[in-house]
Amino acid sequence: MNEKPSLPKGTRDFSPVEMVRRNFIFDTIRIVFTRYGYLPIETPAMENLSTLLGKYGEEGDRLVYKVLNSGDFFSGISTDELTGINPGKLSTRICEKGLRYDLTVPFARYVVQHRNELTFPFKRYQIQPVWRADRPQKGRYREFYQCDVDVIGSGSLLNEVELIQITEEIFRELGLKIMIKINNRKILSGIAETIGEAKRMMDITMAIDKLDKIGLDQVNKELADRGLSDLAIDKLQPILFLEGDPDKKIDALRKILSGSEIGMKGVEEMEAIFGYLNTISISLPVEFDLTLARGLNYYTGAIIEVLSDEVDMGSIAGGGRYDDLTGIFGLPSVSGVGISFGADRIYDVLLQTGSFPEDTESTITLMFVNFGEKEEKHCLKLLEKIRKSGIKAELFPDPVKLKKQLAYANAKSIPYVALVGETEMREEKITIKDMKLGEQSQKSLNELIEKLSSSG
Amino acid sequence: MNEKPSLPKGTRDFSPVEMVRRNFIFDTIRIVFTRYGYLPIETPAMENLSTLLGKYGEEGDRLVYKVLNSGDFFSGISTDELTGINPGKLSTRICEKGLRYDLTVPFARYVVQHRNELTFPFKRYQIQPVWRADRPQKGRYREFYQCDVDVIGSGSLLNEVELIQITEEIFRELGLKIMIKINNRKILSGIAETIGEAKRMMDITMAIDKLDKIGLDQVNKELADRGLSDLAIDKLQPILFLEGDPDKKIDALRKILSGSEIGMKGVEEMEAIFGYLNTISISLPVEFDLTLARGLNYYTGAIIEVLSDEVDMGSIAGGGRYDDLTGIFGLPSVSGVGISFGADRIYDVLLQTGSFPEDTESTITLMFVNFGEKEEKHCLKLLEKIRKSGIKAELFPDPVKLKKQLAYANAKSIPYVALVGETEMREEKITIKDMKLGEQSQKSLNELIEKLSSSG
Repeated sequence: MNEKPSLPKGTRDFSPVEMVRRNFIFDTIRIVFTRYGYLPIETPAMENLSTLLGKYGEEGDRLVYKVLNSGDFFSGISTDELTGINPGKLSTRICEKGLRYDLTVPFARYVVQHRNELTFPFKRYQIQPVWRADRPQKGRYREFYQCDVDVIGSGSLLNEVELIQITEEIFRELGLKIMIKINNRKILSGIAETIGEAKRMMDITMAIDKLDKIGLDQVNKELADRGLSDLAIDKLQPILFLEGDPDKKIDALRKILSGSEIGMKGVEEMEAIFGYLNTISISLPVEFDLTLARGLNYYTGAIIEVLSDEVDMGSIAGGGRYDDLTGIFGLPSVSGVGISFGADRIYDVLLQTGSFPEDTESTITLMFVNFGEKEEKHCLKLLEKIRKSGIKAELFPDPVKLKKQLAYANAKSIPYVALVGETEMREEKITIKDMKLGEQSQKSLNELIEKLSSSG
Repeated sequence: MNEKPSLPKGTRDFSPVEMVRRNFIFDTIRIVFTRYGYLPIETPAMENLSTLLGKYGEEGDRLVYKVLNSGDFFSGISTDELTGINPGKLSTRICEKGLRYDLTVPFARYVVQHRNELTFPFKRYQIQPVWRADRPQKGRYREFYQCDVDVIGSGSLLNEVELIQITEEIFRELGLKIMIKINNRKILSGIAETIGEAKRMMDITMAIDKLDKIGLDQVNKELADRGLSDLAIDKLQPILFLEGDPDKKIDALRKILSGSEIGMKGVEEMEAIFGYLNTISISLPVEFDLTLARGLNYYTGAIIEVLSDEVDMGSIAGGGRYDDLTGIFGLPSVSGVGISFGADRIYDVLLQTGSFPEDTESTITLMFVNFGEKEEKHCLKLLEKIRKSGIKAELFPDPVKLKKQLAYANAKSIPYVALVGETEMREEKITIKDMKLGEQSQKSLNELIEKLSSSG
């Protein structure tokens, strides 16, 4: 049984220092969400596979972790099925449940299931981990937290604008410089129509989504591999590289896409969104990026992506509008839009840019040194009063050497240490040592409480 | 694809109202943990099965959820293995990972893995969900939150006392009446020795742990079934029903267990713990309950259990000392003690006793009615300033009928609604409606901010 412990690949422990930093991220995000009227929900880690599968594309489905049925999971499966092994099929026979892959699909499931209790538009946020059986690499984990904010039941483009405001505000309060990119799936559809490949919208989308990563030549090769004609690929080139500010791109697209109804709808949407953005004092430019596609199947309108302006990290937040995500669960025609913040990548960016605030608040203010049984009991009584006055304090549990106890206080960054021996007990005093300055002084209990209450 | 969505049995969604209540529990617990110098950590949901299995007894092992290996999970498994089906064995061939069953074993694994970064005694808390493939029933879920607090690396009984203080404080601040029961595994060992069944300590423990649930006759029957002699069972009876306050029980046990070294050690420990408890002003009696056993294999000293004094709910918190939990991971002789608070059962008790504080803080203070595009843009600007002053506010996203917008504000318990039409825009005023009183008044932006800042 004597084994060296380890963690599954792609998963991590969070130690106290990391927890404080992560909570800085979560708290900042949560406060901004709340400021805009979003309410918290949580859904279970495990969902039925019937809920999860078929929403993320083939690649996504493969990355869903499946949970083995408990008990006799093979009962009812014939030997023929077993030996004619097809892992993909068999897995859904022996697993009914999976770990959630994102928070959007569970949210859609939640909305449909609870529709009679909800008031629409429903504005919710959700901060929970998700799991993906992805190849672990820099900035990519198998368990990671998403912080999602969505409005469902409103088609208004004001929601898109609000999400952009929220995004700008969160990263400003986190102290990070970012780029916000926005595009529209309807425009991508319009482009596909216009170049004569209307049915290949998803193929085009998937390919140009990789433009940043693999470059133009590879994208064009992939487009050809996916069956696009040379003519269509040629027609696509100038569109992908339209230049100028959003207004210029919108003007250009209005001409290019004039023959495509859906394309024109997308142009109108983008015009409205930028119209709203121009009236508010958002502190950074929002870029209209025609090469932004985002892989997820369910987006139908605006798509948004956030990148760090300081660190090469990939997308640190992203989202978009989905017009019919609840339709697959039996509630059609409910439009939603949301954005998801990747806490783990944001953590890495904050770390690399040295942007975490210095943690001024140590975990505890005062530690009593342990001198033995008689002193312990005396200190227990003092501690009760000290804690009641709101001061965080502890008594070292073992009467070991003073040096060891002080080393513990140092390691925990405890600013004050109380020494109460026979003399102090007799005189009803407490010797207090300032661990930073090294100074010692004697105080009564009330003086001590007063001092530490003000020093925080 | 049009399917009715549902959740896996034994799992639940948490809607906004429930989230506020759950956060009341988590925040109360977290604040008390912090007050005593405990630091937060988190571990991943998935652990290697080699970490999890063999620590919870046979029954526990069966309840661990196993996660199917991704990819071709059958590769390397022969047809013979497959067709000579033994689900128990096969499951560990096709699954390497499982969902954590509790927070104690992951904590032990964490301590061993991070031992060089930690300062001992290490005081940590951890608030995360755990998963058990248990039969769902009232108060028992397949996904539930544990709130664990442990000290590791100190054998001092002061730690047990601190955990009892923490327990008393948490439930007092939650507004719940509880009973704290305490016993000691060493005493149970001593009893087993004394009645001549030293090797059957775990059998005796498992059986008498059920005394509350199944009654004396069934316990005696189970003891006989487990192979205890009639004489031993006879000898056990008076011990189980020792009466009086802790001091009396300790006196009686000192005589009964005088021939058992480990039993006497347990008696001394209990005497010391009650000695400490007598010096502090804990506001409820701690009961010394010899029939308390707690099923988990790893306890070796004090065991603690908390029951509601108002609702019949089973244990709502519990824990104990484990002298060698890290030994199985290669770090022997590190003693730890901890207690785990069951947030979900505590939730049910708070609900049944009507003890949740009335939520005075509505999620948002102000909603702007949406009258159309021109007004929207005007309101967006006002909103920026209002939010900057710390007031939570939103603009209804669609220019639908006023009635519908006000119904939304009511459903969300928003106390104030702002109406800004053409007149207000021209006069730079905001008409504000108090939703409770039904009163309307006109204010400038600054007056509005002042009013809402003070009303919270």
